[in-house]
Amino acid sequence: MEELKNRIRKEGKVIDEEILKVDHFLNHQIDPILMCKIGEQFARIFKETEVTKVITLESSGIAPALMTGFIMKLPVIFARKKKPVTANEDMLSTEVYSFTKKVTNTISLEKSLLSPEDRVLVIDDFLANGAASLGLTKLIKTAGAKVAGIGIVIEKSFQEGRRRLEEAGYSVCSLARIASLKENHVSFLDE
Amino acid sequence: MEELKNRIRKEGKVIDEEILKVDHFLNHQIDPILMCKIGEQFARIFKETEVTKVITLESSGIAPALMTGFIMKLPVIFARKKKPVTANEDMLSTEVYSFTKKVTNTISLEKSLLSPEDRVLVIDDFLANGAASLGLTKLIKTAGAKVAGIGIVIEKSFQEGRRRLEEAGYSVCSLARIASLKENHVSFLDE
Repeated sequence: MEELKNRIRKEGKVIDEEILKVDHFLNHQIDPILMCKIGEQFARIFKETEVTKVITLESSGIAPALMTGFIMKLPVIFARKKKPVTANEDMLSTEVYSFTKKVTNTISLEKSLLSPEDRVLVIDDFLANGAASLGLTKLIKTAGAKVAGIGIVIEKSFQEGRRRLEEAGYSVCSLARIASLKENHVSFLDE
Repeated sequence: MEELKNRIRKEGKVIDEEILKVDHFLNHQIDPILMCKIGEQFARIFKETEVTKVITLESSGIAPALMTGFIMKLPVIFARKKKPVTANEDMLSTEVYSFTKKVTNTISLEKSLLSPEDRVLVIDDFLANGAASLGLTKLIKTAGAKVAGIGIVIEKSFQEGRRRLEEAGYSVCSLARIASLKENHVSFLDE
C-alpha cells in the first residue's frame, strides 16, 4: 500500500535494527483517514473469505480493526491483555510472550463472543515474531471458530512472524513489508 | 441519542448498582456502525468549538474517539495507561485513580503531540467519577494546549463525574445519561 509506505518513510522513527516507531499515525496518535483506507484495503483483500467477525488485540490494533469492520459491516472484537480477575468459565485466555517488550501477557476473550459458525479475520498493527497473532488464532480455535485470514498493517519481514504463521497454516496479508531497519533506514521488500 | 439508549436497554448487563457492562457493542466487542453514528453526533455537538485534535484513553475510548476524529477529519491521540519505562522529558504523565477498579494508573502522553495552538476534544466511553477525563485535561493543560470540551458516550449521572468536571470549568456532553442502575434496571435521566 503505497500511501502507507510513504507515511512510514516520512514519519517512522527507526529506534534500532528491530524497532520502528510510527507513533504519529498508528500507535499513539492515529490518522483516522489513513485508517479508513487501511480498512478499505483489508476489505478488498479478504472479500472472498466470508468473514463474520474481525478480531484484534488492545490497544494499537483497535484502530485498523475498527475501520476494517466498519467497511466490511462486521462486529470487531478486541482481546484484552489482562488476566481475568477471577477464574471464570466464560473467559478464554492464553499466554503471549512479547519478544520486543520481553514480557508475557495473558490475553483473554469472552467465550460467548465467538461461535463455531464464525469465520474470524485477525487484524494487527505490527507483525514481528507472530506471538500476538498466534495467540489470537489460539483463542479463536478454542472457541470452536475458524480463522479466515490474518491482515497486518506493518510486517517486519526480517523477523520470524510470517514464517511461523504460514507454518501454522494461515494466510497472511501485510500492507507494508519491511526488509530491514539497518543503518537507520527503512527498506521495503518490494523496492 | 435514542439508538444508543436502545442498545443499552437491549444489550447492557447491570452487574450491580454501580456497574453496567456493554461488552457487546462498546467495551470488548465493538459495533463500528454504531460507533460511526456516535462520531457523527459528537461532531455535530462540538462543531462550533474549533477542535484541532481528539484525545482519549486506551483502550475502550479508542473506538468512539477514532470515529469522532474520522468525521471531524482530525488526528486522534490515545493516552497510554502505563508509566513511561524510563524517566523521559518527552513524556507527560499523571496519576489517575479508578474508583471502579480500585487501582491507580499512570497515564501518559508524548509531549510533542500537543502544542499551545491545540484545542483538544476529550472523548471517553464512560463517565463515572471523572478521574480519567480529569487526568486527560491535566495532560492537555500541562502541554500548554486548551480543552475544547468533553464528550462522553455513557454517563453514570448518579456518580460524581459530571459535577467534578463542571466545577473544573469544562463543558460535558453525554450521549446517554443513566439516572440509576437500581433493581437490575437501567433508568435514563430524560425518561
